[in-house]
Amino acid sequence: MDKQTLQIVKIGGNVINDEIALASFLKDFAALEGPKILVHGGGKRASEISSAMGLVPQMINGRRVTDAATVEVVTMVYAGLLNKNITAQLQKHNCNALGLSGADANCILAHKRIVKDIDYGFAGDVDAVNADFINVLLQNNVTPVFCAITHDKNGQLLNTNADTIVSEVAIGMSKLYNTELNFVFELKGVLKNIEDKNSVIAHINPATYKELTDAGIIADGMLPKIHNCFNALEKGVGKVKIGDASLVQSQNKLYTTLSLK
Amino acid sequence: MDKQTLQIVKIGGNVINDEIALASFLKDFAALEGPKILVHGGGKRASEISSAMGLVPQMINGRRVTDAATVEVVTMVYAGLLNKNITAQLQKHNCNALGLSGADANCILAHKRIVKDIDYGFAGDVDAVNADFINVLLQNNVTPVFCAITHDKNGQLLNTNADTIVSEVAIGMSKLYNTELNFVFELKGVLKNIEDKNSVIAHINPATYKELTDAGIIADGMLPKIHNCFNALEKGVGKVKIGDASLVQSQNKLYTTLSLK
Repeated sequence: MDKQTLQIVKIGGNVINDEIALASFLKDFAALEGPKILVHGGGKRASEISSAMGLVPQMINGRRVTDAATVEVVTMVYAGLLNKNITAQLQKHNCNALGLSGADANCILAHKRIVKDIDYGFAGDVDAVNADFINVLLQNNVTPVFCAITHDKNGQLLNTNADTIVSEVAIGMSKLYNTELNFVFELKGVLKNIEDKNSVIAHINPATYKELTDAGIIADGMLPKIHNCFNALEKGVGKVKIGDASLVQSQNKLYTTLSLK
Repeated sequence: MDKQTLQIVKIGGNVINDEIALASFLKDFAALEGPKILVHGGGKRASEISSAMGLVPQMINGRRVTDAATVEVVTMVYAGLLNKNITAQLQKHNCNALGLSGADANCILAHKRIVKDIDYGFAGDVDAVNADFINVLLQNNVTPVFCAITHDKNGQLLNTNADTIVSEVAIGMSKLYNTELNFVFELKGVLKNIEDKNSVIAHINPATYKELTDAGIIADGMLPKIHNCFNALEKGVGKVKIGDASLVQSQNKLYTTLSLK
């Protein structure tokens, strides 16, 4: 394999909501060697700021709808407050971070989700990743930091699922790099026994995945997550890891690896 | 002169606060040929959102102090809401814009203003511009769009005067480009007679500037603005223009040009 390895890491709300955990994670992420990309979700600040501004969340069938006021708030919080603070903290640790939304240099083009049963408002589904420009940044030793905001190339910003963004970025970069996609969440990995937080399954491939789902060991919310991982692997991503914030620490050995073999 | 010409344009609150004027300006800016940079100020949205969140502006001697809550709001509004909407609108007009704060790729390094009589809080004074990285963007046909937020390389974001940012960026880029600095404000240029909005002084150099100030024609708020322009010219900026939003329209001939000769 001649391609350089590129680490792509996604952090969600559980890391972002905890200031100390976030600072610790960012220090570890900054220390990761070689080219890397960070994608961050939203956390609770958007809801707090919406409430402070007197906005009432719009829900349909229990799902949040991104109305015009909400897309303004998530743009402020994700692309402004969170993205720039994460970038500034990485700069402190000598990681040459650059915060991006999908609109910036047309990095992530999306379209407003097509209305079938439910109109989710300004929610974006990803169409294309500008891998060539992201590569220009990486080749200049810059670390892209993506928030979960995209655009439609027609002036509209769109709220987009961060798991989707990180998968699409990893898939897009796979034509140029040997990509490793890392999902940081609240557990140490996919667990054999949900009661035992250390019962991490070290490796899952399509064959063992079938065994684990047949046995009911992988179920519920973990199913779409793993489905998303296998989708990325099938589209060119080299390796997927799932674990907690220590995933990016070089000494950490406890996490779940997913691969096609 | 072998250097390529680089246009650097600053828009202030008067353009940003008017949605139609902003859309029209951005369309004109997108049509500008050759490498270009946009710097935008804040406008009234930060104050509106501060009020909506129940924050009370901190003022000392009539000047706003950037406390911790305020730097959060300006980061949200300037680096998030305004910067990403401007970027998305430019993308719509096929200008490959990329929104930046000073923290991004360490583009604008600053320090928290030294406390003499007044502690202005998280207000930044600019130390250095990363001209080499900005040039990487320009050479890849990307148009940098700066908001007026910088950082101290120690994890702190800083609220910074947009006029200062645009001047420092123009000065920094002058080692690589033949720079033209364009200040867009509410008037058509520097006026001979404040009562006549069309009485634009076409050209000011240090000699005519002395005549105009001696005669009391240039006074009050225009003095620091022009002082800032001459400072940029002395530090390598090739030309400075002051005018209204039509400054970037190729057919516009009514504005004030400043130069050292």
